[in-house]
Amino acid sequence: MNTRLKLLRPRNTRFVIGVFFVVAIGLTHPATAQAAETAMPVNFIVGNLWLLIATAMVFLMHLGFATLEAGLTQHKNTVNILFKNVCIVSIGILTYALIGFNLMYPGEEFAGGFFGFSGFWISTDPAGITPAYNENYTYWTDFIFQAMFAATAVTIVSGAVAERIRIEVFLVFALVYVSLCYPIVGMWKWGGGFLDTLDTPFYDFAGSTFVHSVGGWAALVGSIMLGPRLGKYVGRYVHDIPPSNLPLATIGVFLLWFGWYGFNGGSVLSADPGSVSYVFVTTSLGAAAGILGAMLTTIVLIKHLDLAMMLNGALAGLVGITAGADQLGTLDAVITGFVAGGLVVASVLFIDRKLKIDDPVGAISVHLVCGIWGTLAVGIFGNLASIGQFTSQVIGVVSVGAFCGLFSFVVFTVIKRITGLRVTADVEVKGLDHHEHGISGYRGFREEERPLYEKLGGEAAVSATVDLFYKKVLADDRLKGYFEGVDVERLRRHQKSFLAVAFGGGALGTIGQKLRGAHAHLVEQGIGDAEFDRIVDLLEAALAELKVPKELIGEALQTIDGLRNDVLNR
Amino acid sequence: MNTRLKLLRPRNTRFVIGVFFVVAIGLTHPATAQAAETAMPVNFIVGNLWLLIATAMVFLMHLGFATLEAGLTQHKNTVNILFKNVCIVSIGILTYALIGFNLMYPGEEFAGGFFGFSGFWISTDPAGITPAYNENYTYWTDFIFQAMFAATAVTIVSGAVAERIRIEVFLVFALVYVSLCYPIVGMWKWGGGFLDTLDTPFYDFAGSTFVHSVGGWAALVGSIMLGPRLGKYVGRYVHDIPPSNLPLATIGVFLLWFGWYGFNGGSVLSADPGSVSYVFVTTSLGAAAGILGAMLTTIVLIKHLDLAMMLNGALAGLVGITAGADQLGTLDAVITGFVAGGLVVASVLFIDRKLKIDDPVGAISVHLVCGIWGTLAVGIFGNLASIGQFTSQVIGVVSVGAFCGLFSFVVFTVIKRITGLRVTADVEVKGLDHHEHGISGYRGFREEERPLYEKLGGEAAVSATVDLFYKKVLADDRLKGYFEGVDVERLRRHQKSFLAVAFGGGALGTIGQKLRGAHAHLVEQGIGDAEFDRIVDLLEAALAELKVPKELIGEALQTIDGLRNDVLNR
Amino acid sequence: MNTRLKLLRPRNTRFVIGVFFVVAIGLTHPATAQAAETAMPVNFIVGNLWLLIATAMVFLMHLGFATLEAGLTQHKNTVNILFKNVCIVSIGILTYALIGFNLMYPGEEFAGGFFGFSGFWISTDPAGITPAYNENYTYWTDFIFQAMFAATAVTIVSGAVAERIRIEVFLVFALVYVSLCYPIVGMWKWGGGFLDTLDTPFYDFAGSTFVHSVGGWAALVGSIMLGPRLGKYVGRYVHDIPPSNLPLATIGVFLLWFGWYGFNGGSVLSADPGSVSYVFVTTSLGAAAGILGAMLTTIVLIKHLDLAMMLNGALAGLVGITAGADQLGTLDAVITGFVAGGLVVASVLFIDRKLKIDDPVGAISVHLVCGIWGTLAVGIFGNLASIGQFTSQVIGVVSVGAFCGLFSFVVFTVIKRITGLRVTADVEVKGLDHHEHGISGYRGFREEERPLYEKLGGEAAVSATVDLFYKKVLADDRLKGYFEGVDVERLRRHQKSFLAVAFGGGALGTIGQKLRGAHAHLVEQGIGDAEFDRIVDLLEAALAELKVPKELIGEALQTIDGLRNDVLNR
Repeated sequence: MNTRLKLLRPRNTRFVIGVFFVVAIGLTHPATAQAAETAMPVNFIVGNLWLLIATAMVFLMHLGFATLEAGLTQHKNTVNILFKNVCIVSIGILTYALIGFNLMYPGEEFAGGFFGFSGFWISTDPAGITPAYNENYTYWTDFIFQAMFAATAVTIVSGAVAERIRIEVFLVFALVYVSLCYPIVGMWKWGGGFLDTLDTPFYDFAGSTFVHSVGGWAALVGSIMLGPRLGKYVGRYVHDIPPSNLPLATIGVFLLWFGWYGFNGGSVLSADPGSVSYVFVTTSLGAAAGILGAMLTTIVLIKHLDLAMMLNGALAGLVGITAGADQLGTLDAVITGFVAGGLVVASVLFIDRKLKIDDPVGAISVHLVCGIWGTLAVGIFGNLASIGQFTSQVIGVVSVGAFCGLFSFVVFTVIKRITGLRVTADVEVKGLDHHEHGISGYRGFREEERPLYEKLGGEAAVSATVDLFYKKVLADDRLKGYFEGVDVERLRRHQKSFLAVAFGGGALGTIGQKLRGAHAHLVEQGIGDAEFDRIVDLLEAALAELKVPKELIGEALQTIDGLRNDVLNR
Repeated sequence: MNTRLKLLRPRNTRFVIGVFFVVAIGLTHPATAQAAETAMPVNFIVGNLWLLIATAMVFLMHLGFATLEAGLTQHKNTVNILFKNVCIVSIGILTYALIGFNLMYPGEEFAGGFFGFSGFWISTDPAGITPAYNENYTYWTDFIFQAMFAATAVTIVSGAVAERIRIEVFLVFALVYVSLCYPIVGMWKWGGGFLDTLDTPFYDFAGSTFVHSVGGWAALVGSIMLGPRLGKYVGRYVHDIPPSNLPLATIGVFLLWFGWYGFNGGSVLSADPGSVSYVFVTTSLGAAAGILGAMLTTIVLIKHLDLAMMLNGALAGLVGITAGADQLGTLDAVITGFVAGGLVVASVLFIDRKLKIDDPVGAISVHLVCGIWGTLAVGIFGNLASIGQFTSQVIGVVSVGAFCGLFSFVVFTVIKRITGLRVTADVEVKGLDHHEHGISGYRGFREEERPLYEKLGGEAAVSATVDLFYKKVLADDRLKGYFEGVDVERLRRHQKSFLAVAFGGGALGTIGQKLRGAHAHLVEQGIGDAEFDRIVDLLEAALAELKVPKELIGEALQTIDGLRNDVLNR
Repeated sequence: MNTRLKLLRPRNTRFVIGVFFVVAIGLTHPATAQAAETAMPVNFIVGNLWLLIATAMVFLMHLGFATLEAGLTQHKNTVNILFKNVCIVSIGILTYALIGFNLMYPGEEFAGGFFGFSGFWISTDPAGITPAYNENYTYWTDFIFQAMFAATAVTIVSGAVAERIRIEVFLVFALVYVSLCYPIVGMWKWGGGFLDTLDTPFYDFAGSTFVHSVGGWAALVGSIMLGPRLGKYVGRYVHDIPPSNLPLATIGVFLLWFGWYGFNGGSVLSADPGSVSYVFVTTSLGAAAGILGAMLTTIVLIKHLDLAMMLNGALAGLVGITAGADQLGTLDAVITGFVAGGLVVASVLFIDRKLKIDDPVGAISVHLVCGIWGTLAVGIFGNLASIGQFTSQVIGVVSVGAFCGLFSFVVFTVIKRITGLRVTADVEVKGLDHHEHGISGYRGFREEERPLYEKLGGEAAVSATVDLFYKKVLADDRLKGYFEGVDVERLRRHQKSFLAVAFGGGALGTIGQKLRGAHAHLVEQGIGDAEFDRIVDLLEAALAELKVPKELIGEALQTIDGLRNDVLNR
């Protein structure tokens, strides 16, 4: 991703600050259909198409992060993680359109060494969709490709702070970080800022530093400031909290790898055959070597075959190769990836066991540690390797780290003062899904095994329900008439054994016949849906009064409803 | 997706009706290799490639629907949902080749205002793979891109009728709907029919109406005619039936969003840089704003952070932006998506709580309500906004709705008369997976926790098994000889405690040594695999006679088989 | 995938054997940026881009295989399957770079009828990234596209040998097979070997034989040599071992199908509009007809709607169409796919029930049986159909089968002599995840249902813990001072009932208040974090001494840690 100064981007002064949700009927007319298609250069058509396809591939990385993080954390926090990841995509794209793109690529006119801003919201004139904007892509392609990168950076944070951060805190942090910190830092190089104008310019091809370490620094600061999950470090005890769904985590890593072909391959910013194909090769070799490095290191340090570490090894190799994917030789790519794979295992263990920083998914090790390693590798291996380059790489790493670390610290500190960062201990132990979302990520995997009868509390509970239910029935104006002269005590016994069968998962078919017989005379007396519904209402009231959980009430009523036609002899 | 009249499509009269599965050796020779590659225009090569890639992306939407629907419904109906979605892809592609494509795009010669048909099966002459067919793609690309759309429309229905429809009923409905209703309606605009020849032509860029609302109308009619799931509405009680697998549903939505870049981006029907990139931007903004709209509406109306609603919000934004993705301005796209996101939440609640129509996945709200909204939005915002356009949009919505609603009603009514629509109450309560597919979607997530010993029924059951087993052994001609002079009572006791350990999940290693000792003398007497197999057969017979479920028998025999080498002292 | 002789590949003699992980700073400079972009032919730019995108799509097939295999096997072996699939991608790419590519495509200079090799590791001169290498793609594209295919072939094996092979055995086999067998055999046709120089050359468009059957033969040999899983065939009993996660398997098949558009479409080796679009159509028709064929055959032979069979039907259709995707007519494609779909069902049943070869995922039927069928179909249907072609196809099938079968047999035999192939019976019964990886694929799906109190062993266990804990506390120099004059017996009783509540999943909030009161005087005496940590250490020691599993200890300490602030009155 080379520096691209936007000489031709027109400033649209019509769009004022805060216009975001103002109804703008007829105000905005896309300048698309008017473009003459005559004689467009091949580079422009093909390069543009490739960047759009790469955009879609990078989009899929968000699913990769969502599934990886949900897979590596605990069962009870799954919905919370997914929720955060869905929100981030929305926040990332919208804020990047509102402010981020124009902060990161302000164009020559507005650029500075450290900061530049060319106004709110995205827009272009007709030239923006011609090679006059860029010989390889349109203004819109430029925006949407970069927008997907922006959202990626913050997603990295969500894994490190998972399972204990308050959801509002995370969303506010993500909003501020992606709107301001990510684009300001990115501008330093990709927007033509001071790191691009060093004597030996800092080099970061696709974002080992500007995407991965930017996310990684916030992950580091966030997880330190939040503190570890409860029980993670108690006394001298280090508690390994195992992942809940490794197939899901594996899906995540493969999707990230797939998306990385767009992330790195698209960062060529053209469809140049030599460059894009070469980047595909180094990216693949880096990832493959990362797995190998992680495997060998794991065998030495952990002494068993740890799938999660292997998955992190693949990601480590990918993060590591990202800064120099177009500059490293093929063997350099293997070495860089292999070292990254080993590094990530050692780093996870060091951060977890020695530094006692709790990072549930290893995001700091993957994105920050390997992001730094990959950035430095550009100064060590490949076409650019030199003392001067290495020095520039160190300058870039340090300056980005200082800014992002400070930025994160300030934002988290302000939020902490206002609302606090963590959920309460009670919520954390029970799981964030229950408290913040009122739902479980995986319902029915456990509770359906036991028959409803048992879940309701067995004989005692069903008996209590029936007693209360009949009390209500016999007091009900519409229904009590039907029970005159009936031996209620006997009925109650029948009802108890009937419910034992019905709620016991028994065959409803056989009950059906008995019910038909038992209710035939009532049907002749005229009972119908109204009475049946009334009965169901009273049963619900009885169950609710006995504090039966809402879900079980639903299940009970579902069962009863299945017998309506039998009761009513239809 | 502009109107494309197929002037050049040759009619292949050799293909007669019904030829579908006739062996046709040598009959069909693809006209591919013969094409001279000299000097093909860039537009043709690149446009064609983009549409093919878009085709693959739209294909992936089928996985998106499958996982979304399986994730949002109950654990016990998972296999059934997946089964339907797999079938639909097959049915969609095959029928579209047989009849759909030629109904939807009959070409100028065969087109009418409301109906046209150019014959069965797909074929072309050599010109079909040159720019003479279309300057941006070949005949084959045209077909396969459209075929993927066709299958999508019916998949929408499957979510709304889930958990209670008979599988044959759904498959027959899907077959008829995708073969006839979808292409006939689509022809009205995309094939050059009456909606395309209005004074102000109806506009639907990529299918808010022709794909999403076409599916949505059938979803509405189907869910009304089927009635709600058992226990969903009992008396005054509205039972929320929570989703079973939210990570799976999240995978579904992200894959749908990914596919949508192909769905909308491909509908440009060329790789024109300005148009395709602009459509990527509006599509992204629409989806992102849909999430935001759903989030805010959810907080107001439901008062907690509902992941399923957010996911539906993303889809709502995507459906909403689909009709005008190339015509709306960027802010229009945000507004359209934002409104769609809010609308979907309100609509789900209204349909579920007020209308009491049971739509397990919210398909009606997402695809029908937001499809209509998106279609109308083209008359309100952007380049085409005008009273005349709005009127045309209303005409399109109403005429498509009337036809699809009536079509669905007639088809469902006919099927209902013949076979009925719903599974029995018994099947519904136990789950469709058990009854229709004889399998669970997630096996081993629950039952393996308890040791086999306990699952078999504990001491009493094992004891009964051993008694019966020895009765069989002592009556067996091949085996009884080995037991002469043996204290069978003692053996039986040993066997019982042995099985308690073996089935208790205990360490087989330690049992092994004892078994070796105990059987050494028998091995000397010549017992071998034949005797061991006989023993296993008798044990199986004993377990089967005691009505032990087949799966547990398998597990028991697996354990015993693991001891073969020990018993036979090898 | 036509024969491509690499006339222009330079031999890089600088790279010596074994150089793989030698640090090579500055040694390798990619020849990318230097390429002049002036006037590159359209075919080259677009063809190259398409092959790279196809590469990424084929990469995703690895995720398809991983999820399919993990979904179709047992819950207890999930991590093991995923681990293998992650390793294979790494092994496949690295060995193909080191040796495979140069064995499979040695170039004219080095090629032989049966074997050729042009040296270790990949490299090219500047011409490698120009049309001089190939008019449709660069050297790097050529390599990475082929590398993805190579890794695919071995992945096929992993499903057939699943749930019982030792992981090291599989990895060594995969390494040898993908390094040597796959590329040597592939060279026979695609590298210009003897099958390509037959009078009527053998034809395999995208790999029914060279990818699928190559994998399939090893799957056959491997599963025979390993023998069936324990309890699969016991006596006369054939035990169906049902899949554990059908949504995961469905994800796998759809991803494979998606990837197949790259697999077959990319095998055109250019972006020729007519050819690529035609291949998309035949591929889609083949898969769709495969589902139909499997469905009808399943209904006849199995008499219920078997999702796993339908999924295999789709794959069967895809494997079947792969050899002749560019040569068969559209109806031929339907017939070929339909027959493949039926064949796979019959073959699974025959192999499983009659041959009693245990192939947990049906890989032999899908990849070997349908790979052979697809290869033969090229001689029966379509452009090439003739007796001569059919004969050549048979020659190809037999020679590849003989070589791969023998190769697999030798490799497995050698490994068997050295280490044995199978895990022990004990490991197999408990599951490979537990033994080889020390982790479960799905944690928390079962065990969290019961409160910790119960999992620890109920009253007796908690009581014993408290007794031991107080013994330790009263012997501890730092702590014992605080207990002077305290009624320890009473404290112990309190502690027992406190833990019953705390570990019972009760509300920690209410306990909190009591703890504050009870410890207020101790806080005044100066207890703080140090004392709290000491207490936790002693509790951990007590639990460990009582052999409480590590995971439960973690859970217990997590709960206690949640009360720190209450105890310390903060």
